[in-house]
This record gives sequence, structure tokens and C-alpha cells, in this order.
Amino acid sequence: MKETAILLAHCKEQKGILDSVTDFLSENNAETLRLQQHVDHQENHFYIRAAWDLENFNIPKEKVGEYFDTLVAKKFGMEWRIAFNSSVQRVALMVSKYAHCIYDLLSRYESGEWKIEIPLIISNHEKFRGLAEKFGIPYYCFPITKENKHQQEAEELKLLAEHNIDLIVLARYMQVLTDDFVSHYRNRIINIHHSSLPAFAGANPYKAAYTRGVKFMGATAHYVTPDLDEGPIIAQDVVSISHRDSLADLKRKGKDIEKVVLAKAVWSHLNYNVLAYKNKTVVFG
Amino acid sequence: MKETAILLAHCKEQKGILDSVTDFLSENNAETLRLQQHVDHQENHFYIRAAWDLENFNIPKEKVGEYFDTLVAKKFGMEWRIAFNSSVQRVALMVSKYAHCIYDLLSRYESGEWKIEIPLIISNHEKFRGLAEKFGIPYYCFPITKENKHQQEAEELKLLAEHNIDLIVLARYMQVLTDDFVSHYRNRIINIHHSSLPAFAGANPYKAAYTRGVKFMGATAHYVTPDLDEGPIIAQDVVSISHRDSLADLKRKGKDIEKVVLAKAVWSHLNYNVLAYKNKTVVFG
Amino acid sequence: MKETAILLAHCKEQKGILDSVTDFLSENNAETLRLQQHVDHQENHFYIRAAWDLENFNIPKEKVGEYFDTLVAKKFGMEWRIAFNSSVQRVALMVSKYAHCIYDLLSRYESGEWKIEIPLIISNHEKFRGLAEKFGIPYYCFPITKENKHQQEAEELKLLAEHNIDLIVLARYMQVLTDDFVSHYRNRIINIHHSSLPAFAGANPYKAAYTRGVKFMGATAHYVTPDLDEGPIIAQDVVSISHRDSLADLKRKGKDIEKVVLAKAVWSHLNYNVLAYKNKTVVFG
Amino acid sequence: MKETAILLAHCKEQKGILDSVTDFLSENNAETLRLQQHVDHQENHFYIRAAWDLENFNIPKEKVGEYFDTLVAKKFGMEWRIAFNSSVQRVALMVSKYAHCIYDLLSRYESGEWKIEIPLIISNHEKFRGLAEKFGIPYYCFPITKENKHQQEAEELKLLAEHNIDLIVLARYMQVLTDDFVSHYRNRIINIHHSSLPAFAGANPYKAAYTRGVKFMGATAHYVTPDLDEGPIIAQDVVSISHRDSLADLKRKGKDIEKVVLAKAVWSHLNYNVLAYKNKTVVFG
Repeated sequence: MKETAILLAHCKEQKGILDSVTDFLSENNAETLRLQQHVDHQENHFYIRAAWDLENFNIPKEKVGEYFDTLVAKKFGMEWRIAFNSSVQRVALMVSKYAHCIYDLLSRYESGEWKIEIPLIISNHEKFRGLAEKFGIPYYCFPITKENKHQQEAEELKLLAEHNIDLIVLARYMQVLTDDFVSHYRNRIINIHHSSLPAFAGANPYKAAYTRGVKFMGATAHYVTPDLDEGPIIAQDVVSISHRDSLADLKRKGKDIEKVVLAKAVWSHLNYNVLAYKNKTVVFG
Repeated sequence: MKETAILLAHCKEQKGILDSVTDFLSENNAETLRLQQHVDHQENHFYIRAAWDLENFNIPKEKVGEYFDTLVAKKFGMEWRIAFNSSVQRVALMVSKYAHCIYDLLSRYESGEWKIEIPLIISNHEKFRGLAEKFGIPYYCFPITKENKHQQEAEELKLLAEHNIDLIVLARYMQVLTDDFVSHYRNRIINIHHSSLPAFAGANPYKAAYTRGVKFMGATAHYVTPDLDEGPIIAQDVVSISHRDSLADLKRKGKDIEKVVLAKAVWSHLNYNVLAYKNKTVVFG
Repeated sequence: MKETAILLAHCKEQKGILDSVTDFLSENNAETLRLQQHVDHQENHFYIRAAWDLENFNIPKEKVGEYFDTLVAKKFGMEWRIAFNSSVQRVALMVSKYAHCIYDLLSRYESGEWKIEIPLIISNHEKFRGLAEKFGIPYYCFPITKENKHQQEAEELKLLAEHNIDLIVLARYMQVLTDDFVSHYRNRIINIHHSSLPAFAGANPYKAAYTRGVKFMGATAHYVTPDLDEGPIIAQDVVSISHRDSLADLKRKGKDIEKVVLAKAVWSHLNYNVLAYKNKTVVFG
Repeated sequence: MKETAILLAHCKEQKGILDSVTDFLSENNAETLRLQQHVDHQENHFYIRAAWDLENFNIPKEKVGEYFDTLVAKKFGMEWRIAFNSSVQRVALMVSKYAHCIYDLLSRYESGEWKIEIPLIISNHEKFRGLAEKFGIPYYCFPITKENKHQQEAEELKLLAEHNIDLIVLARYMQVLTDDFVSHYRNRIINIHHSSLPAFAGANPYKAAYTRGVKFMGATAHYVTPDLDEGPIIAQDVVSISHRDSLADLKRKGKDIEKVVLAKAVWSHLNYNVLAYKNKTVVFG
């Protein structure tokens, strides 16, 4: 596999951005593998993702970011990020009591479907310690009460920092994170909500869906922001239901789309396909 | 095509209902073509649909209802209805200014996809008078203001009664019907809402969906009840969207699922597949 | 949870079957929980599934089958089966080298999503021995060559018989089973094919789908019959793809629908919702 | 609405194409609205679509093609096309005896959903002459026999040429077009096949799907090539079916996805989103 650089950037729409980026690439002898540009005309905002082969690129890998910042990004006031497909991302999982997502994520990890590191699992319950051991992953349990929440989160943040975590995946973690916690990992915490947001936000969406008699129910993976269930949506999916489905059937069907939607969102993030701005995402790929 | 009777009934779940119905059929020499029973264990409510060949049935067609009521329904306190596949239902369309649903319904009607009568179209605008004439259907325009609403509805109800209307289809009719109007056609008015309810209830769901950045949008066909957008859902569908879709794209994609979902719900109703109880439907078939 | 009996039966369509079944139930004081009848008018074939509460049923549990056979089934030449929700089914898994389905099935098992026993895993490779041990399940490896196939299958059949296996799930088992093997478990072996059959039957459907440029790809779970990829389909699902998806993306997306479709089919089977006749299934529920 | 130019181009993947295109745009003062590039690494083929505002573009509209050809396309051996959003495309419909697609296309046309001209409808039957008149569109009937096929097609081609037809839409036209006919409108004839190709190619896919007992059926819109049902696929969709669906239900459900999928493909083509190369399409947008 060839070593590839990936640029993700966004800024206010202005003239000449695209040309400036492609010039940066071509003048430095990049072989562009894929370039995708998007303008949100409602927000007047510009997004770009470009991937190129590093082999004959004139700028040394460790200088690419500095050069891009100087030659392109500063000119347009870009928020940007350059990543390399060779880097192995470090992902922390947080889980409470539901099994389907954590099993699914660990399976993808252990079977080699995802090339990542999972240095630790954090939970507010002891329930999955045995599972974590089975998969050889350190498990840290921080029971949360109203009183100890800030202190426990501080411990968690310390652990996450020590392990150089790039991404936190909430695999049905049932505690609301504080704004402070979230601010340390902006657009780097992915949660799965068990409904097709904005329908059935909040607690117990299965029950609400059953009571309302909907014919489809869904799952939503989103970046966590201080506003609960309001973060930028990365992926959603739905499954059809009917009067023949009991509440237990809804839960069962829900689990299957939740784990798949969460994995889809995590995959998009891990492959540098997602840009979030305000309350929305651009998902290239 | 054989003449068929269809029973739709529901009541509080009790012992012996199913056997009572099948005895009624077999003792009178029915050839049962399809029988579907459902119990909602949350509501403890029983639903049944049965279709049988009338050819050798011992009870004369015009007496079937009376006998069923006496021998079965009264015993269990059933709400019931018996229909015949040979009857041609009379459907009124109501429309405001959006074209996609009314064109679609008229196309299904004229091409013979649906064996129904459409004796009239009612609108609060003149816009589709030409279209109605093209399809040979009388068109009545009742402009609605806050002041004249009740009076105009009274005229509409008179017309609908004169035409022995069985079902009213709101093909993107943008006026809220009064409770009084709705009470005349309980579970006989089908509306299409341009979102996947309960998400984006109310006005301008496309805009709301676009602004929220959802990855799926939907359409919902439901019986109209006094609570706006809260009636029993008959059919829903969704379509995937992405950041590449503009607000205009959402509207375009929405139109296609709206007309198909509305038609699906109307078809289910016309084929006596729908039972509504409280806020939910059972859709057999 | 109440103890429930489930009847699954089918036979040539004849007059009086339904009434005969409901009489059998009501005369013996059954509380019918759900009854679903279906007639395939093309094949003129009758299918029924009925579930009832055993609590006040007059016939003792161990005699239900005998009585049903005598009083109903023989009269109509039925193929039938009566099961009890209290019984724990014994499921054998067979796997070759792909991880996604076996991980998914084991996760559902261990997390208690499915109340079953998995007494053994059979493979033609050593690859998943460690995984099996991790989940505490005996693992038997039978490498298959053209020469030893019949002998190895004989060993496998012996093992399966010793373990009283009710259902065999092929979790991406890449060997074709002989007709003899299949004949021991008619409609009790479920396979997952990695395409939306009948499209892309045979080897390497991902590659074929990629080359053909389809916009959807699928997965199909079916009972195994002597005709490869031709058995009765229990469940299917599809996922949309585009030119942006590489062959690797197709494989990744395929895995996710395969494991979910396989689980859906197994669930339907385990809940006595599936009747197969000739080349088709009726899937109640 | 601003006047926009759209470039669609493809060629063998080579270094510098993307930069050459963006230089062409930026050096001539284009405001790029959207640029999408794609490389098919299996075929080693490059695709690009770019849309830009013509307002301040230095090259006069009528010279854009010539300049692009000279300055960019020739260098890379591109097949290319430049279109303007202000041009109104001229679409011919061909139909045999099924109503759903032709009604749907005419509805979109008359209601203004699509800004196109439909100068004529061609059929091999008289059936829809009345419909065409209703919508004010000239209707030409060319009955086809084995003997007269080439002669009738010659007449049709003459008519199509006289009307400067840009695109031909086969709205369930049941005659196979000759290779000669097809060669006049390469990648400009869109057909709808009533199955999810490659499943159930050829005649009577509904019946085949019903007999096989599939749980999903589909529709496929593709460019017509000399190989029947083998042309590049533009759009597909599927709908779930069950044992409860009769063959008539399959036909009914099929109609709804056919008309929507056909419309989706035509829309993509009309908006210059489709590039076909060999047997596949790239569908931007």
C-alpha cells in the first residue's frame, strides 16, 4: 500500500481556494488520487478533501503541514488537518450496559477489519470487564454519581491524555458528558443514538416509537456536542417495522442498525472523510 | 375474478374470538382465502381481517353484516366492517398548489391501476382546474380564509355527502381541517406529510431537515385526526440524502417518496387492509 | 415468560383446514396468542402458524403432537411441527476464513441476545480455534480435500448427531456440502451468500458486482439444498453503492449486511417463523 | 438563476489533468461552484465534472468548448462535453403499452418539475395517442414487425433528427432497438428494466422473481447498448416483498420503483451528472 497524505479543510467560500490547493499539489509534484470539493451555498462555506501519493512529493512528510499552512491555509483562513494513511489511530471505547456495539467494535478490531489501536475501555459499570480481558484490552471502571461526575471525568481525561487518544467512541455509554469533557475532544467523540434523530430524541426512543406506531425506526451516529442529541450527524439508517413487531422486536432490530451505523460513522472518521462545521457534516467518500 | 367478502374487526382481547369468527365462516360454508389475526399485547386489543369466497357462502350477501353482528360481533363488543371486493369505492381528492401527488393519483386512476371512482376534486385554489378538466373530473374551488373556513367546509361536506364519498385523500392540501370536518370522516381521510413523522412535524420540514443536516428524509401517510400530524400512521418511507443535496434536491427527492407513500397508504385502505385503533394502525397485507 | 406452543404446518390447500385448526385449539381451551394463515394461490398450498398459551390447555405438553397429528394433520396430509418456546435449540456453526459472521453470531450468543446452545464449531481451517476457545466452545477442524470430503463429512455428521444439533449455520463456510450431508438436515442448514441472489450466484460476487457497476449490492440467507445457491430464501437485504466505492469498499459494506441478514434469518428460524415448501419460504412474524 | 457552464470529461488517468483543468478555470476567472474528480483505479481512468459561473468568465460562452479542447482536452486525449444550465434539452419518449412511466414523465414535464421540451412521443401501439393529445404532444405510431423493423426505425431516426432530440427515454418501450439505431444515440438512450439487474434479465422478471421467492425486487435504469440489459447502469432501487405479495402485488410495487428510478436516472442525465465509460457509469451529484 502506497503512503498517502489526506487534506481536510474548510473555510468561508472565497475565490481561488480550489486553484490554490491544486497548485500546491501540482507544483510540488503530487499525484492526486482523489479530490472532492463542496460548497454549502446556504452557509457560503467551502469544504475540501484531497488525497495524494507521497512518493514523489517534493515536500518532506514532516513539513507538509507547515508548508500548507504557510502557502495556502493562512491566505484563506482555513481550518485544516493533514493526515497520513500510514498512521494508526488510537481509539478509546466508552460503554455502559448494552452489549451489541461494544462486541461489534471489538470484533472489527480483533479480526483486523479496522487497523487501529484500542488502548483502553472506559465504563461506569463493571459489566464488561470480562469481555475486555478476553480481548486483551485494559478496562477502567468509573462509577458516576451526581456528586463525583466532574472528578471522575477528570480521571478519565487524564487516562485518555496519557494514552494519546485520537477518537472516543461511545458504544452506548449512557452518561451525559459534561461540556468541559466534550471541549477536550471537539468532533472527536462519536455517539450512537437509538433513533432517527431528530425523531425521538432523549430517553427511551424505542418505547416512544412503539407507542407512536411508526413504520420505520432508525439509528443516528453523531459527534458529541454540549447540546445533547444535537451534534453534527455523521451517519443514519432506518429499518422498517410493522404492527407485528413487539417492543422487544423493536429493540432487537434497533440493535442491528445501531451497531452498523456506529461502525459506518467511525469508519468515515477514521478514513478522514468527515468535516463538521456548525451543526452539520460533510461526509466525503 | 371471484366475489369476495372482507371482514375487518377489532375489540378488546378476549378468549374465543378467533374461534367464533372461524366457526361463523366454516359453518356457513365459506372458503377462507386469507385470515390474519393480531393481538396488541400492550393495549390488550384484538384485530382480525378475513377474506372469503362468497360463491357457496350460505348467507346472502346483503345479510352477511346483520348475521355477523348478531352471531359474533355483539358477543365481543367488536367494531367491525364487512366489504366486498366487487364494490367500487368513491374517492374525493383535495389539493392546494403542489402538483406531484394529484398528478400521480389521477394517473393511477385514469390508467386503470386503481378501480375506483373519483367524482370530484376540491381545492382552495384555482390552480389545478385545467388538470381536472383534462382528466374529466369536476373541480370545486373553495378559497379559505380565517373568516369563511367553517362555512366553506360546510359546503364541502355537503358536496362530499351528495357524492357518497367513501374516502378523502389530501394530495398536499395545505389547510388544516376543523375537528368538525374530520369527525364526519373518521379514519377515512388520508393525508401525506412531507417528513418522517414525528421528525419535523409542522411547517417546512424540508428546510428543517436541511438545516439539521440529517442523512435520511421521509414521508408519512396517516389518517387525519383533530391533532395535526398526530393521526395513526399508515405508511412511511425514507430516502437517503447527503451534503451534496441542496434544499432544492431535498424537495425533489421528497416529492418522489411522498407520492409513492401516499399511494401505498391509499391502496392499503382501498383493499381493506388497515385497522386504526387509538393512535396506531394495523396494516395487514 | 409464559410457556407457549407453536404450530407450523403446511399442506395442499383444502376446505376446512383453518377451522379444523382453530377448533382443535378452542375445544381444548387454548388461549391463541397469534394465528397466521397463508395460501399460495399459485401453488395452491396452505400454510399456518399458530402460537398459544399452554397454561390452561387441556392436552398435556408431551401429548400435543400426537393429538394434533391424529385429530387434524392426518386428515389434511399436513407436514407439521409443534415446538415450545421453553426449549433451548442447539446450533452448530461452520466457518472457513472470514471473520465477520462468526464473530457476530458468537457475540449474540454470549451476550444473551439469543437463548440458544452452541455446542460446537466446525471448520475446515484452524484459523478460528483461538476465537472458539475465547468463547468457550469446542472447535473441530476437518480440512477438506477432494479425496477426503465424504469421509470428513461422515465424521462431522457423527459429531452433529452426538450433540443433538437442531440447526446448522454456515457462517461463511466455503465448502460445498454434499447432497448426502444436506439430506440429514433438510431446511435446517442456513447459509449466507454474499450477493442478492439470483444476481451474482457462484464465486466472487463482489468482484462481479464491481465489474458490472451495479448501484446496489446485497446478501441472501437461505436454506441449503443440493442445488448450490438455489435453496429457499429466508432473508435478503441490500446496500447502496456508487462509483466512489472501491472493490475493498464493496467487501466492507457487504460484510455488514451479510452478518445482519444471516442473523435475521437465523432469528426467524429459531422463533419458528419459517416454513419452506419447494423453493420458497413463508416467513411469518 | 445564474448562468452556469458544466464540464464533463474523462480520459486515461495521467499526471496533471486535475491541475490543468483548475488552471484553465482560474486563469480565466471562473468562479468554480462545484468540482468533482474521480479515478477508477481498476480501469486507471480519470473522470471529472466541474461547474462554474459564466458571469465573469473571460472566454465567451460560444468559445468555451473550442478553448477547452485546445488548451486542455487534446493534451490528455479527453472525451469531453461542455453544457450550459440555460439550455433546454429536447427529450423524446418511446412507449409501448404500460402506463406508469409515461404518465409519470408527462406529469413531471407538464407540472414544471423538469425544464425540458418533449417534442414527440413514439410508440409501436396506438394506445397512448389520447394521452399524448391531452398533454399536447405529437404522437407517432410505428407498429413493428420482424419484416419492417429496419424501415420503421429509419423513419423514427429521421423524425428524431428533425426534432434535434438530445435524449431518448424508453418509458417501458418493449421493442429491442437495433444496433444501428442505438449507435446514433450512444449514451443518450435511457431504458428502464423491471428488475434489479443483473438479476432477472430478459423477459418477465416479475414472474421469475415471484417463482424464485426473493425478498426484494428492483428496477434498473441504464443506457441502452447493443447488448440487451447490459448497458451502463445509471440508477437502481429495490423494494421489499414477502410471501404475502401475489404476482399482482409484485407488478404493482414494481411499477412504483420503475417510474421513480427512471426519473432519477433521467434527472441525473439532464443535469449533466453522468459519465459512462465501457460498461459502467460515474454518477456525480
